[in-house]
Amino acid sequence: MAERHLDAAVVMGPVAGNPTMRYMVNGARLTSAIVVKRRGRAPVLVHGSMERDEASLSGLDTIDMSRYRFLDLLKEAGGDRLTATVQLMAHIFDDLGVKGRVGFYGIGERGATFALLEAIGHGLPEIQVVGEFENDIFTVARATKDSTEVARIRSVAERTVATVDATRAFLAGHKVRNGVLIRENGQPLRVRDVKAFVRRVLCEQGLEEEVELIFAIGRDAGIPHSHGRDEDLIQLGKPIVFDLFPRERSGGYFFDMTRTWCLGFAPPEVQAVYDDVRACFEVVLNALEPGGLAGHYHHLACEFFEARGHPTVNSDPGTETGFVHSLGHGIGLSLHERPHLSSAPGNEDRLEPGVVFAVEPGLYYPDRGLGVRLEDVLYLDEAGVFHNLTNYSLELLIEVEGSQL
Amino acid sequence: MAERHLDAAVVMGPVAGNPTMRYMVNGARLTSAIVVKRRGRAPVLVHGSMERDEASLSGLDTIDMSRYRFLDLLKEAGGDRLTATVQLMAHIFDDLGVKGRVGFYGIGERGATFALLEAIGHGLPEIQVVGEFENDIFTVARATKDSTEVARIRSVAERTVATVDATRAFLAGHKVRNGVLIRENGQPLRVRDVKAFVRRVLCEQGLEEEVELIFAIGRDAGIPHSHGRDEDLIQLGKPIVFDLFPRERSGGYFFDMTRTWCLGFAPPEVQAVYDDVRACFEVVLNALEPGGLAGHYHHLACEFFEARGHPTVNSDPGTETGFVHSLGHGIGLSLHERPHLSSAPGNEDRLEPGVVFAVEPGLYYPDRGLGVRLEDVLYLDEAGVFHNLTNYSLELLIEVEGSQL
Repeated sequence: MAERHLDAAVVMGPVAGNPTMRYMVNGARLTSAIVVKRRGRAPVLVHGSMERDEASLSGLDTIDMSRYRFLDLLKEAGGDRLTATVQLMAHIFDDLGVKGRVGFYGIGERGATFALLEAIGHGLPEIQVVGEFENDIFTVARATKDSTEVARIRSVAERTVATVDATRAFLAGHKVRNGVLIRENGQPLRVRDVKAFVRRVLCEQGLEEEVELIFAIGRDAGIPHSHGRDEDLIQLGKPIVFDLFPRERSGGYFFDMTRTWCLGFAPPEVQAVYDDVRACFEVVLNALEPGGLAGHYHHLACEFFEARGHPTVNSDPGTETGFVHSLGHGIGLSLHERPHLSSAPGNEDRLEPGVVFAVEPGLYYPDRGLGVRLEDVLYLDEAGVFHNLTNYSLELLIEVEGSQL
Repeated sequence: MAERHLDAAVVMGPVAGNPTMRYMVNGARLTSAIVVKRRGRAPVLVHGSMERDEASLSGLDTIDMSRYRFLDLLKEAGGDRLTATVQLMAHIFDDLGVKGRVGFYGIGERGATFALLEAIGHGLPEIQVVGEFENDIFTVARATKDSTEVARIRSVAERTVATVDATRAFLAGHKVRNGVLIRENGQPLRVRDVKAFVRRVLCEQGLEEEVELIFAIGRDAGIPHSHGRDEDLIQLGKPIVFDLFPRERSGGYFFDMTRTWCLGFAPPEVQAVYDDVRACFEVVLNALEPGGLAGHYHHLACEFFEARGHPTVNSDPGTETGFVHSLGHGIGLSLHERPHLSSAPGNEDRLEPGVVFAVEPGLYYPDRGLGVRLEDVLYLDEAGVFHNLTNYSLELLIEVEGSQL
């Protein structure tokens, strides 16, 4: 905060869907709160009076919001909630001696945020509102994980791997007819059935989807953001991109993992693309160094792919074939956070001790009906050692029970 | 928009965790987007080029973001993402002929929002940034549901009721020893086991928790925001507040339902408080009228409870016993939305045709180890008829298999 000349930081809003607030209240299950962090002082949590028990679980110093009699403030303001909220903030700032440059954080509705921060800036002469656009103090703090956070991510990793492994066994256990997987009841297995299976396992593992998982076959595997079509059959010899990115139930730490599978057999064209992705993956993992520029590894992947004749976002920023996205991203209370393994101008992120990040090279050729992506998550410890948190087979081929063609 | 003198409305951000964006893109599973709605014109969706297939499912006119070459803008700005983003918005506004008063909506980080909207206001002379603090145009639009939305909420309602009913049967099927429920393995059943059961059913029903469900016993039932303690035993004769508020998987429409149960027997003290809550519930439901002021029903509930000797937030705004919260709230893509059935100054919400709202009177006496809440959801159709979407027994008592004391 000193470096940014901030006298205080204010985090506002719900805990659900608000990673910075979740981070500040140590996961306490509050509906909504205000956390004030003065430079050099411990943070203070202002909570609703109905949530005092839960607030105490945050481990923070607390103030019961009822002290400020918000409904009286609202009455005095003639029902104008903006004016009343500015008054509420003025009282909190008075109580805590907050003045000077104050940054505001946490998610909120854009229009309401703008109205409130403008009104605070104009209405409270001792407060200078600071809006950090990117790499704000909490984003930076959240980029490196402490041992408690790493332990939680490791647990999500194990449960995610268990889910992927169960899915692999589920697929392998099916019969085959006319080159597609067949259920016990004689009907073909479809993407929707596989997703239903994955969800049952996720649920047993105490995990949830923030966004629908990716299980995409053939051409859809060639479109990185396709989630897969519910109706699609599970055909032998077609590449399947299975990207699973669950988080702890009711919000919490994420994991992220991708495997590409061919059931029964791998056609030479798929195998060749897979081999390039796998080789790139190993080149990148072997090149990682503590303190390395995150963007460097993205360049490395692009150079590797270009040398093998694939278009990349470096050679053609608008490409829709080849390597079409960035190499990876940090992971934590958000699915995508710092460090960014990308070549975006201005990206100076480095692999500092404590980072947890996904590496996910991929190649996409939708018109040829194929795409391949592999993704593991790495953790760099304080001693400068990288740990792979994924530890699961990268193999392309899954043998199927009845895979005679 | 005319009424508020808005020339355009811009919704930005992810779909996940952003109800206004989800509403505008009709649930299309985009990572992040910009929707521009000009007054009197159809909305336009600006989407990432990797998400063009999904964008087309929104049914909106679309623009592929790649047209604006954001990475070039970022390079021109020397890596300064704020400057590049202002330029991106300037290009979009140019293309769509947007100028004048422009409101901004959707969730975002507060500091980043403030920085961006200030920079747009200062940097783009033809744009006047408008921040609506409350009751913004989308909040108002979302308060009344069309038939498609009501059908989806009805479906979530049925699945929520099925989950509550399965939980009731699960509890009733247990044996009793020393006044607590006992599992097949001879160990006592605990709140954590009940929650695990509820979650399995929710998962089968295609529903998820945004925030952890409430299953709170005894004193915890007397604290409206307590989620219940995992270790607690399921004791006969203790009131259990079971409040379930799931939504469609991966975000979507919510439902909200509360029942209070006593297993085996209901002590007279609990029965008396339950009877007052149940009577209040019926008074309120019978009093509902199309066009009625939402806050009026909250007053009605307070008057009813006060006449029976209970403290309320009307008689004592800081009360921690009696009726300590507001009577209800609208429900949709957010768990709490308009109309607000509360006495907050300035609340002028009315029960307009199309509203879907929860009514949830409750009484809380934590020091006496009890709390009671009942909650149903109502829908007011275009013909002025209220429909109860909950349709499930309100009974307090659940008979248990081996409930000899």
